[in-house]
Amino acid sequence: MLSLINSYQDGYSLAQNFYKNEEIYRKEIENIFLKNWVFAGHISQIPAHGDFFLYEFDEESVIVVRSKTGEINAFMNVCRHRGSHICLEKKGNAKSLVCPYHAWSYNLEGELVAARNMEDDFDKSTNGLHRVHLELLGGLIFISLAETPLSLQSMRSELNDTFDLFGLERTKLAKQISYPIRANWKLAVENYLECYHCTPAHREYSAIHTLALPPAKFEQHLADYQARMTNAIRTTPCNQYYDLANEGEEGFQYSRDPLLPGMKSGTLNGEPASRLLGDITGYDGGCSDLMLGPVSFFLIYDDHMVGYRFLPLTVDTCVCDVYWFVHESAEEGKDFDLSALTWLWDVTTQADETIITNNQKGVNSHFYRPGKLSEMEDTQQCFLDWYIKVLQQ
Amino acid sequence: MLSLINSYQDGYSLAQNFYKNEEIYRKEIENIFLKNWVFAGHISQIPAHGDFFLYEFDEESVIVVRSKTGEINAFMNVCRHRGSHICLEKKGNAKSLVCPYHAWSYNLEGELVAARNMEDDFDKSTNGLHRVHLELLGGLIFISLAETPLSLQSMRSELNDTFDLFGLERTKLAKQISYPIRANWKLAVENYLECYHCTPAHREYSAIHTLALPPAKFEQHLADYQARMTNAIRTTPCNQYYDLANEGEEGFQYSRDPLLPGMKSGTLNGEPASRLLGDITGYDGGCSDLMLGPVSFFLIYDDHMVGYRFLPLTVDTCVCDVYWFVHESAEEGKDFDLSALTWLWDVTTQADETIITNNQKGVNSHFYRPGKLSEMEDTQQCFLDWYIKVLQQ
Amino acid sequence: MLSLINSYQDGYSLAQNFYKNEEIYRKEIENIFLKNWVFAGHISQIPAHGDFFLYEFDEESVIVVRSKTGEINAFMNVCRHRGSHICLEKKGNAKSLVCPYHAWSYNLEGELVAARNMEDDFDKSTNGLHRVHLELLGGLIFISLAETPLSLQSMRSELNDTFDLFGLERTKLAKQISYPIRANWKLAVENYLECYHCTPAHREYSAIHTLALPPAKFEQHLADYQARMTNAIRTTPCNQYYDLANEGEEGFQYSRDPLLPGMKSGTLNGEPASRLLGDITGYDGGCSDLMLGPVSFFLIYDDHMVGYRFLPLTVDTCVCDVYWFVHESAEEGKDFDLSALTWLWDVTTQADETIITNNQKGVNSHFYRPGKLSEMEDTQQCFLDWYIKVLQQ
Repeated sequence: MLSLINSYQDGYSLAQNFYKNEEIYRKEIENIFLKNWVFAGHISQIPAHGDFFLYEFDEESVIVVRSKTGEINAFMNVCRHRGSHICLEKKGNAKSLVCPYHAWSYNLEGELVAARNMEDDFDKSTNGLHRVHLELLGGLIFISLAETPLSLQSMRSELNDTFDLFGLERTKLAKQISYPIRANWKLAVENYLECYHCTPAHREYSAIHTLALPPAKFEQHLADYQARMTNAIRTTPCNQYYDLANEGEEGFQYSRDPLLPGMKSGTLNGEPASRLLGDITGYDGGCSDLMLGPVSFFLIYDDHMVGYRFLPLTVDTCVCDVYWFVHESAEEGKDFDLSALTWLWDVTTQADETIITNNQKGVNSHFYRPGKLSEMEDTQQCFLDWYIKVLQQ
Repeated sequence: MLSLINSYQDGYSLAQNFYKNEEIYRKEIENIFLKNWVFAGHISQIPAHGDFFLYEFDEESVIVVRSKTGEINAFMNVCRHRGSHICLEKKGNAKSLVCPYHAWSYNLEGELVAARNMEDDFDKSTNGLHRVHLELLGGLIFISLAETPLSLQSMRSELNDTFDLFGLERTKLAKQISYPIRANWKLAVENYLECYHCTPAHREYSAIHTLALPPAKFEQHLADYQARMTNAIRTTPCNQYYDLANEGEEGFQYSRDPLLPGMKSGTLNGEPASRLLGDITGYDGGCSDLMLGPVSFFLIYDDHMVGYRFLPLTVDTCVCDVYWFVHESAEEGKDFDLSALTWLWDVTTQADETIITNNQKGVNSHFYRPGKLSEMEDTQQCFLDWYIKVLQQ
Repeated sequence: MLSLINSYQDGYSLAQNFYKNEEIYRKEIENIFLKNWVFAGHISQIPAHGDFFLYEFDEESVIVVRSKTGEINAFMNVCRHRGSHICLEKKGNAKSLVCPYHAWSYNLEGELVAARNMEDDFDKSTNGLHRVHLELLGGLIFISLAETPLSLQSMRSELNDTFDLFGLERTKLAKQISYPIRANWKLAVENYLECYHCTPAHREYSAIHTLALPPAKFEQHLADYQARMTNAIRTTPCNQYYDLANEGEEGFQYSRDPLLPGMKSGTLNGEPASRLLGDITGYDGGCSDLMLGPVSFFLIYDDHMVGYRFLPLTVDTCVCDVYWFVHESAEEGKDFDLSALTWLWDVTTQADETIITNNQKGVNSHFYRPGKLSEMEDTQQCFLDWYIKVLQQ
């Protein structure tokens, strides 16, 4: 593994084995997915006591559940008796968490409250479910499986105002689609991190967003946008992501990028998608790009938010989970049309699935060599630099 | 492997790697499935000369065939020329065993009788099929792939009377169903060995059998049953199973357990299922539990017998094969209804398939740790103690 | 690996691990499939400028394309940027080779002609597609992925007259079928190399070809055929194949074998299949067997040619690709009936798929041992001797 890591050259794509080797993959699970903060879902998905959903990747399954006091808790979906999954459905409602195998029962705080026919010296108090760290950021639920998780302090202080302005706590999930991809998860993340491919691969996106443009043209649009911006939306970017994060802190990034002239939202022809979010009072022609932790991304339009999350399933398969959020009071059929709302990022993700799969196929060739990255792949380069560092921890 | 074995703690479930590691799995095949006695089928399945069926697990395939003299023989289904399977169908009838590849022909004694175009010095007499050990126990065919198999002496002397009383040689196979399970084979065997899960997971079974009850209640039922038992059926248990077996002998176990009051057989409402077996003269409200070797189990009701066998396919998949036997003179539609006969153990095995699969999922988690077993999992504990010992041979 | 290689005994089949071990498989890819010459297709498949097809095996994909000057070029289907496959369809027409990911554009000579937004010091001239060696033999396209490929000099000088006589450059592909096989590729090649199995397994073939007969009978047919042959078709065999090839040269083999009396072609009842090929003036009752490199084989009847190619997909799966060629001026429905043309080798290959799959199953058994080969498996023995030598290079 060391010689592979030493083969890495800044400014070039990764060598083949990073995308194929099982040992590398196990190290990634350990050093990234069992450690960093990952978006699990939104509070609107579990409004009532006992409501739960599962957050799952690789061999892991986490129960995210609202307790009787209204708190949100997260526990490993692993019975302390013989290890069975406890919740078998992806979401639901449960008064308590009862293992379907031998009926060991845990309350919504994860405490073991009943275990039949155990010897007298059996200590229930040390056999509760394994609780994992959970934080709320504007209603977005983040989970870390680390013993001591990275700090979210900078992220909160930089972005809380933005979460508030867009009223993220007062959104609701309108639609969620999972896109399985036959490729290593890094190829999917790298794809998300660069817009070098947008012009050739995403006609629909490129007709709305300026980020697909060459850097010089994009900068011109950005300058124009910032000059005319008068409302309260933050335009100053912050780039504490990947290798730019502070020591001991989770990485994050924020920018407000202009749409093409006349575009209001991330839809066909840039038409409005739904009710304006939070305290937004009108369309400003911009869209916020948010990265919260290494594999969770959000696009905040004035009238809806799209969430993106990339999770590994095996060394050569992953899943891209896409979430569409609207104002909590928006009604389908009246305030928004679901197919119009989801059209842009559904068609874009489908195209990406093809791209990423064919990228993996070529990378698998004996003849693949790391290639030179372009200036439009600079965020991807940050990711790769960080990744190489993290692999060695 | 040694450190994994040393991690085992009596009274706790096994560590994750026992259920995932390929090296451990290969060792299990070698030390258990290529050595111990396993139920392959029943004489009633191959009544005529040349009748055969295959006994298969992992990468192995064994031909069990009735010879021209009526003997039952077992041979590896591997041609001595270039290794092709010889019998391609799971069962059938053959006058001789002719390899479909190059037509090398073996008689029903496994001797090579024809091989075209071989050089003159080719010795047919040393190129017969690899014969494996086969023993009949009350018409039940057991196979051992060991060079020197374990002795069945104690098993025979303890149980022959019981085989005779129930007339197992005079039963016939009414139905066989295979249930593939996406889990390591040990999780399936462990599941079979404990009834701690019966109350929460098997409502149907628990409405008929007393074994689902907590130990104290079960013991009361057992005492009542033994007190009123007047017929010839053996009630004294023998527990020479797993680590309790004599040195050099195959393990086995027998017990006669009561059904719930009023229940006659393992069916809906405990109604009779078919003609009484062998020399049984009336319903006694009991059911015999039999273990013959490590992965073959039998339930003998007064009017039918159910056989269970667990076989590994890969490290993380196995198959549970269930057999229903009735009196050889019982006629379907007249003496028994096939769906009524098979209902209980079909519904129970389907539920177990779900349970075992979800057990494997949780065991695969990074956060799974061996858990404390209950007093109702004592047979499972014997199995685990034996398993750990056998792995080190 | 060394002890496995040392276990090889001339005159016996290979040990199990040669057919299962991943390390052995990677060595085979490196020492055979990334080195030797393999049939990729025929010039008639890409008649126009920009026409292309893919040649694929294991993790490799090669673009075979006709350039604007009419030359045929072959390039790895791997973009020099981040490795994506460039051509996603198995065949088609392209004015230039544009990567669908970031639109890097290569001309039909493989030169990188456009790459957007790269830094000024980026050198397009060193970022062309990886070109691989390609040779034409009578219109048949052969590819070697080696840096310095084996010489085809002897093959050309021995066989050019035969290619010319049968007018192979003036044939066209009438049909191609791929047969996936769940077995290691060597079992498929070994199967092709011996006709010991033809009598028991290929009734259809054995009714037309003499090669299925025992050696003595075959020799008699061959002598009769050679005695009465008066036309221009070469009957002298050349056996420079496998371990008989000259040092530094690719192996090849040619023989002209008689069909059974009265048979004209490889069809039902030996009826004519299509227009006579090249300069052939009448049916002579023979068929040429051609091996060009280790995994590409051709049968040249007087009126059509069948091509066979075996390629590994994974260690335990491979594909047999069969090609049917007819005279370029032959018209379907008039000069040939497609189902009659393809019948013999379709039914034969389907039977082989079953045979080979069952061979692998038996070879996987713990009880499989290398078996003695017959006198009718002498070509297979040459292959095995060569294979063992090549594995050690």
